[in-house]
Amino acid sequence: MREYTVAVAGATGVVGQEMIKVLAERRFPVKRLLPLASQRSVGKEVEFQGSKVKVELLTKDSFEGVDIALFSAGAGVSKEIAPQAAKSGAIVIDNSSAFRMDPEVPLVVPEVNPQDAFGHKGIIANPNCSTIQMVVVLKPVHDAFGIERVVVSTYQSVSGWGKEAVDQLWNELEEIVSEHEPIVRKEIPRVLPYQIAFNLFPHIDVFMDEDYTKEEWKMVNETRKIMHSDIRVTATCVRVPVLISHSEAVNVQLREKAAVKEIRTVLSNAPGVIVEDDVLNNIYPMPLYAAGKDEVFVGRIRKDNTVDNGFWLWIVADNLRKGAALNAVQIAELLVKEGKV
Amino acid sequence: MREYTVAVAGATGVVGQEMIKVLAERRFPVKRLLPLASQRSVGKEVEFQGSKVKVELLTKDSFEGVDIALFSAGAGVSKEIAPQAAKSGAIVIDNSSAFRMDPEVPLVVPEVNPQDAFGHKGIIANPNCSTIQMVVVLKPVHDAFGIERVVVSTYQSVSGWGKEAVDQLWNELEEIVSEHEPIVRKEIPRVLPYQIAFNLFPHIDVFMDEDYTKEEWKMVNETRKIMHSDIRVTATCVRVPVLISHSEAVNVQLREKAAVKEIRTVLSNAPGVIVEDDVLNNIYPMPLYAAGKDEVFVGRIRKDNTVDNGFWLWIVADNLRKGAALNAVQIAELLVKEGKV
Repeated sequence: MREYTVAVAGATGVVGQEMIKVLAERRFPVKRLLPLASQRSVGKEVEFQGSKVKVELLTKDSFEGVDIALFSAGAGVSKEIAPQAAKSGAIVIDNSSAFRMDPEVPLVVPEVNPQDAFGHKGIIANPNCSTIQMVVVLKPVHDAFGIERVVVSTYQSVSGWGKEAVDQLWNELEEIVSEHEPIVRKEIPRVLPYQIAFNLFPHIDVFMDEDYTKEEWKMVNETRKIMHSDIRVTATCVRVPVLISHSEAVNVQLREKAAVKEIRTVLSNAPGVIVEDDVLNNIYPMPLYAAGKDEVFVGRIRKDNTVDNGFWLWIVADNLRKGAALNAVQIAELLVKEGKV
Repeated sequence: MREYTVAVAGATGVVGQEMIKVLAERRFPVKRLLPLASQRSVGKEVEFQGSKVKVELLTKDSFEGVDIALFSAGAGVSKEIAPQAAKSGAIVIDNSSAFRMDPEVPLVVPEVNPQDAFGHKGIIANPNCSTIQMVVVLKPVHDAFGIERVVVSTYQSVSGWGKEAVDQLWNELEEIVSEHEPIVRKEIPRVLPYQIAFNLFPHIDVFMDEDYTKEEWKMVNETRKIMHSDIRVTATCVRVPVLISHSEAVNVQLREKAAVKEIRTVLSNAPGVIVEDDVLNNIYPMPLYAAGKDEVFVGRIRKDNTVDNGFWLWIVADNLRKGAALNAVQIAELLVKEGKV
């Protein structure tokens, strides 16, 4: 079996770390792992398959001989360096927002639009975390009954921001528990706009057109691109004091009549989806227990009688895995399987 | 000025305590405060206007000479004792769900349907916390433009459950910070169905018809009763690791065309509402900062272009104050002001 040289750009971030973990767990055929990062992290070591690998400096010239380059070092870095990596012959799978809406770049969720991956010109984009978990669930429903409109409110964990936001939440909680005061008075390094412990805010990424956040636009536009559909999506994205996993309350209006039972059956048979929906036994998806899992969990499947063919879905997934690292590695697996790398 | 004997049934609970605090803060004309509770709390003292008042046993015979009885001791206690209190001549303002949908009992939010209060037959019901804050905002919008349909997802704090849930969250956090482990392994007294620290779940109150929770049905049915309207409401209600204040992502479809600016103007002039909506300066309502405040805060007012006349609102309020204690005291004030007690 062929093995590949795999670079991970942004190897010390929360997603980069998860990428390396997922590559090992899934026994991706790695000949050589090349962890890359900014100057700040050079010399650090990452663990891969039981051995330590030194982190090297990420530059335009890092990609000679690299087969697959997983990028998760921010949109700025991707914009600057990914095209160069592709020119060096690597297939770039980019987790940033840099190329997602570029018509030349496929935006891929393997359970949803695997074929798109094969049309790449050197770069494949990994969608936004909150979008990935939603489309994995919406796609089989759309195929079966057609989706007209989606109204989604999210509950997104701090790890979606990155390691510093995880640290912020931990530091705030230490202070809160030690002072037994809900509002943190001490100066704590803060990357999120406000205290997140005991709090939440409808503000993820920057504000843009029509007072939507960039995160909200991502859910609107990426969903349409991935699903090749003019499905109407509107979103409110909210950061909550959870470490890992995003949750979503998703209200869908279908084109065709469907029974709750039929939707449940469709989802039970969908790839990458686990139905957890037995409310009388308190069974529904939750972020704390989805963390570390590969699947997208869906529950609270029920009718919304305020509109024709209305339904609610409650969707939860590990934002670092299916929402980022795992999806990227699955794209790489897809290319390997089809002999496209 | 006339003064009144005011009983608080459930005086040691989180809402009962807040009721006593609000009575004092608002200088409600109290001749005598009578804190009532179950056997467990008898003999405890509550603070009122700088002095300590002994908690007495709550029984059917507690209400002789009581003018106003604020109940917040659970639906079971209200069902059993409130009718007797009313028979004794007290006007009961009941914070439980016991009588809310009883056609003989008015369900009142003073900013929305004050007139309803005057038709009482001894009992006035205080609506559910998540409903109150929503209708305070929806009413002026409905009056101006007509509301067709509401899709709401909530982010509800643990204090909505009561004191034991607040304790559960604090205890879990102490354990989490001390062990630096996200999942609590120690046995901690738990009243919520699962660990709530670093977690959330779409489960508030019991599951009922069509797999909706009772909390979700409350939002549907109470909204229609309070607003005297057949406005269509559907909800997903979610418990989050926040101490105080509920937040709501509310998607509304209006009957008539409206501009964002017009809605903002209507809400700026609405009683009990504060518009916090300046996203470029990171101004939007948040639960941590709404706690302790009387008003309902609204922000993220923006168009939803996936439907005709669609809009988003982000609504936050202190669930113990406007969502419970304050609204109850405001109902009492209304009766006093109109000479109806």
